[in-house]
Amino acid sequence: MLLIPVSDLIERLRERGARSVALQFPAGLARQAPGTAAALRDAGFEVVVSGDPCYGGCDLALDALLYADVLVHFGHAPVEERPNVIYEPVRFDFDVTVLEKALPLLTGLRVGLVTTVQHVHLLGAMAAFLRDHGIEAVVAPGDGRTPIPGQVLGCNFAAARATGADEILFVGTGVFHPIGIRLATRARVVALDPYTREAQEVDADRLVRRRAAVMEKARDAANYGIIVSTKSGQQRMDLARRLASLSDRAFLVAMREVSPAEMLDLGFGAYVNTACPRLAYDDQIRFPVPVLTPPEFEILCGARDWDDYTIDEYLAP
Amino acid sequence: MLLIPVSDLIERLRERGARSVALQFPAGLARQAPGTAAALRDAGFEVVVSGDPCYGGCDLALDALLYADVLVHFGHAPVEERPNVIYEPVRFDFDVTVLEKALPLLTGLRVGLVTTVQHVHLLGAMAAFLRDHGIEAVVAPGDGRTPIPGQVLGCNFAAARATGADEILFVGTGVFHPIGIRLATRARVVALDPYTREAQEVDADRLVRRRAAVMEKARDAANYGIIVSTKSGQQRMDLARRLASLSDRAFLVAMREVSPAEMLDLGFGAYVNTACPRLAYDDQIRFPVPVLTPPEFEILCGARDWDDYTIDEYLAP
Repeated sequence: MLLIPVSDLIERLRERGARSVALQFPAGLARQAPGTAAALRDAGFEVVVSGDPCYGGCDLALDALLYADVLVHFGHAPVEERPNVIYEPVRFDFDVTVLEKALPLLTGLRVGLVTTVQHVHLLGAMAAFLRDHGIEAVVAPGDGRTPIPGQVLGCNFAAARATGADEILFVGTGVFHPIGIRLATRARVVALDPYTREAQEVDADRLVRRRAAVMEKARDAANYGIIVSTKSGQQRMDLARRLASLSDRAFLVAMREVSPAEMLDLGFGAYVNTACPRLAYDDQIRFPVPVLTPPEFEILCGARDWDDYTIDEYLAP
Repeated sequence: MLLIPVSDLIERLRERGARSVALQFPAGLARQAPGTAAALRDAGFEVVVSGDPCYGGCDLALDALLYADVLVHFGHAPVEERPNVIYEPVRFDFDVTVLEKALPLLTGLRVGLVTTVQHVHLLGAMAAFLRDHGIEAVVAPGDGRTPIPGQVLGCNFAAARATGADEILFVGTGVFHPIGIRLATRARVVALDPYTREAQEVDADRLVRRRAAVMEKARDAANYGIIVSTKSGQQRMDLARRLASLSDRAFLVAMREVSPAEMLDLGFGAYVNTACPRLAYDDQIRFPVPVLTPPEFEILCGARDWDDYTIDEYLAP
């Protein structure tokens, strides 16, 4: 059974005059690849499936365009528009009455409401549910990397900040996004997982303590590799250059996949990550040496105060 | 201590008018990165080190050229010329009298002589040693992917074939190259490791038996992913398309790093690898499903006879 309907996609590919098409799926949708490829081949297209890792709309398989007229990127909204790329976000539904689980945790009558791309189509219904329970939900537009009002990414909380609310309700899975919102906005943040039906107020203190320990380990490194990504939507070279200028011991390192094996091979004592901001937070446990965020390296070099500790965000230029 | 002398390189970079330079090292030389980067930075260049995996001259960090005027690729000879790439092969010496260890295994008075790029500067001395012991050594030019006479790659044995000899002496480490030469030329092959000082006649039978078992496992796969590389020197799309046309169950899959995790995510029952030929032979043990070479898939589809089993070579177009 195909999760992904292709009839509308076939229509749009034909309108563009595409003859060959590359398909890209994030890991959670990758099992859809053989079936989707077969359906498009039956419709007359030459099909190439991208088999590279894919973590977001920032991570386009542009080199598959070597072999195809158009790239179809499933599962994410655009973080940037590209002429030969079609984005096909995939919707995941839930019953919005699950929001009743969050009601006891909300303290005010006005709340900022945000979610991730697979649930943005439910924002209207969620806001209506809250209104019916006497709470005004504010859904605000983010920036150019989050084109849908109320949409946040793991690296971009502009749509939360823009609500101007003292209390934010995040509906989605995992605690990374709500902790990021907490650090980015300093608002009170309630997270509701619509599948486990669990609601909780999130706290960033544990993350900050853990990161302080990583920073201490990085302090005496013989040298620092400042990682700059070569992925389509993660190229923060200006930031990387500025960070490299903070220390004589810092060198620029270009990477596509930020990988423990290559970190070890190159042998830098610590790294600073300007690629996907989540990597330093989520994957330190996989890394052989400390990997800092840009604000953390600024603190280490005396270019930022500890009181200004913040989450690394990748905002639209 | 720097293994890599940079004074001559600095000269050439200045002649080109380069202001920024990207450095790429294979894993075995990666520890030279911080020191080499520092030396070039002291000479006035902006330096970016490539932190992506690198397995050969076929695997250029072209996307690091986003951030640099010139890419310097260490450790390999060119498999293709590119305007903004400088190749810096690295020499590894040994005492050529080690060839005495191979003499008892040679049966004729004429032998084809081949080695890998890090030792090609010793071919003259090796041929002289053999001549002094009554053996004519034939060193022959390969093809466009092996620009130095007598040089073989793990995917290209043209310089062995071109000797026309019934007996080939391979001097270098590992058994992969000599087994490949055996399969590609059907000549008798003697391998000498100049560091362990061990010489042996190589036999391809075990490899072929192992591969036959992998082919049997692949026979009943529900579908096949035909892997086509996006790396600079591994793009065999014509071959991949021809292979895909042999089976309705075959789909093209574009990959940069041929990775077990992504194979599993996509869920094809077996793969056929047109990227680096060595992957199917060397890395089957890492892969979750059978990965065939192009000739093996042809045999499976009835498009080639078992008697024509051969090693997958990537020859110059």
